[in-house]
Amino acid sequence: MRKLINAPADVVSDALRGLAAAHPELTVDPGNGTVVRGDAPRTGKVALVSGGGSGHEPLHAGFVGHGMLDAACCGEVFTSPVPDQIIAATMAVSGGAGVLHLVKNYTGDVMNFQMAAELAEDEDIEVTSVIVDDDVAVEDSTFTAGRRGTGATLFAEKIAGALAEEGAALADVAAVAREVNERSRSFGVALSSCTVPAAGSPTFELGEDEMELGIGIHGEPGRERVEVGTATEIVDASLSAIDADMPLSGSEVLVLVNGMGGTPLIEQYVAYAAAAEWLEGHGATVVRRLVGPYVTSLEMAGCMISVCRVTPELTRLWDAPVETPGLRWGR
Amino acid sequence: MRKLINAPADVVSDALRGLAAAHPELTVDPGNGTVVRGDAPRTGKVALVSGGGSGHEPLHAGFVGHGMLDAACCGEVFTSPVPDQIIAATMAVSGGAGVLHLVKNYTGDVMNFQMAAELAEDEDIEVTSVIVDDDVAVEDSTFTAGRRGTGATLFAEKIAGALAEEGAALADVAAVAREVNERSRSFGVALSSCTVPAAGSPTFELGEDEMELGIGIHGEPGRERVEVGTATEIVDASLSAIDADMPLSGSEVLVLVNGMGGTPLIEQYVAYAAAAEWLEGHGATVVRRLVGPYVTSLEMAGCMISVCRVTPELTRLWDAPVETPGLRWGR
Repeated sequence: MRKLINAPADVVSDALRGLAAAHPELTVDPGNGTVVRGDAPRTGKVALVSGGGSGHEPLHAGFVGHGMLDAACCGEVFTSPVPDQIIAATMAVSGGAGVLHLVKNYTGDVMNFQMAAELAEDEDIEVTSVIVDDDVAVEDSTFTAGRRGTGATLFAEKIAGALAEEGAALADVAAVAREVNERSRSFGVALSSCTVPAAGSPTFELGEDEMELGIGIHGEPGRERVEVGTATEIVDASLSAIDADMPLSGSEVLVLVNGMGGTPLIEQYVAYAAAAEWLEGHGATVVRRLVGPYVTSLEMAGCMISVCRVTPELTRLWDAPVETPGLRWGR
Repeated sequence: MRKLINAPADVVSDALRGLAAAHPELTVDPGNGTVVRGDAPRTGKVALVSGGGSGHEPLHAGFVGHGMLDAACCGEVFTSPVPDQIIAATMAVSGGAGVLHLVKNYTGDVMNFQMAAELAEDEDIEVTSVIVDDDVAVEDSTFTAGRRGTGATLFAEKIAGALAEEGAALADVAAVAREVNERSRSFGVALSSCTVPAAGSPTFELGEDEMELGIGIHGEPGRERVEVGTATEIVDASLSAIDADMPLSGSEVLVLVNGMGGTPLIEQYVAYAAAAEWLEGHGATVVRRLVGPYVTSLEMAGCMISVCRVTPELTRLWDAPVETPGLRWGR
């Protein structure tokens, strides 16, 4: 296993020590796996808490800061954070206006965030949870009942984070997060496996000329394994799957072309060119876009495309200032 | 070859079509391989032009914009841009105050930028060239007489770009770029090879438990091939090599921990934790830092560390607003 790590058991805490050293504006507890805005708690502001297994960076820890998350809970690699982490983060950011839990739809995440929400109630902290389940590839996959949560998590964190920053109430912040999830779909393709450090060997094996359509962000199986296609074919398969589930024609869309961690940026731009052409050719108007490795699967090669059918209000919130390690503009 | 591309011959133009679609604020000529600020030429402003082979994204095309480059010339993958590209970019951005060519020290780049500078003279455009040669790993490597230019290119583009944005004269902008280069050193380590699309097979082969110390950003040989070490050992080897060439004790430093394209962000933060501790333990003070894939080598796994011994003025220019696809803050 050739990885830039020390011991497999220390990957998450070592990375969080790095995040802490690089970002003194954040309050990082590497031992407990929490990352909190340095100015938390903000009195009267709805706080956003997300989290999940590590290995998807910059999601979630890299999205803590002004205009996005108030805290992230970082589980071990591809392992849900435990309720103790989540309640610690929730209490650290609670400013009296309630806390929104943004949860990707994996069974462990949903269960542990639910337990933490109950613990928060005992502390008189109002918590609302919104589940993100945007991946159209499969239903009831490994780790998941229903659909998996992937790229739309970034959209929900950014847009709900902007509304919370404006001082909106918990019900409204939760409603916009739900709206973003309902208007978003994702589909991923793997050109190589990832290797979980503690496992030490690839999560799955692909033949020399194979790719996996509909891959999950932990290497969970997708729809089918086929011969490697061109970028244009990969993008067509991805956007066709999304379009079949949520017709895109006539919509204004926000698009994420997301590198999975092992695919270089030059290839992500090749994919974006194909995506922009596909969308235009199918009657959608791209009003905002993001190209880069934002929701990764360790060193997996490939890409995931996420699309949100935005409204003018969602676009306005997307454009609002954000200042986090992983996403920054307008400030 | 499992890559997210169409035809190998189209990778650069396809990626530039993607960049153009994603960044309408830039003037991109995918066929000619040039990327120019949309507001160019800016009358009275010194213009910065850089470029080189593609495959290092976001360097250089992703650094075109306010506070950084005025134009980038994108050669084929790992291939120098030709003089025609460079003179076209130079003429497109010339605003009458002169043009700075920032050139990584590879024989083809140096020669072709030199030819373009001579062509520019014929057009009455004053050009000054600054060569970046910060890589301490080896002298007279493949493609290079002297030292290779790598991570310090980002430092020079950012800092000289900020000074040019303030309206400084060509001689002063060139002087600060030279100063950054003189004060900067880099060292890279590869945990896997990259594969040039047109070649179709890995540039070099590493054994299952081997890594290459001192790798070049095109996969050129480094100092030695050794057994894979921990992140802490890799960082120690890198910073010791830099420190032996340019003592760091007592200095304020700007540090880049740079992913090479195939190493996920979580591992880059593990490396940054080790780098921050090493530097503090050796008497240097980290005043600014950047962690991420900024100067890549296609899908190579591994990292490169670059260090600049900054002055208060260089730090001030580093902090100045920048708004490019690959680097953005303060605006």
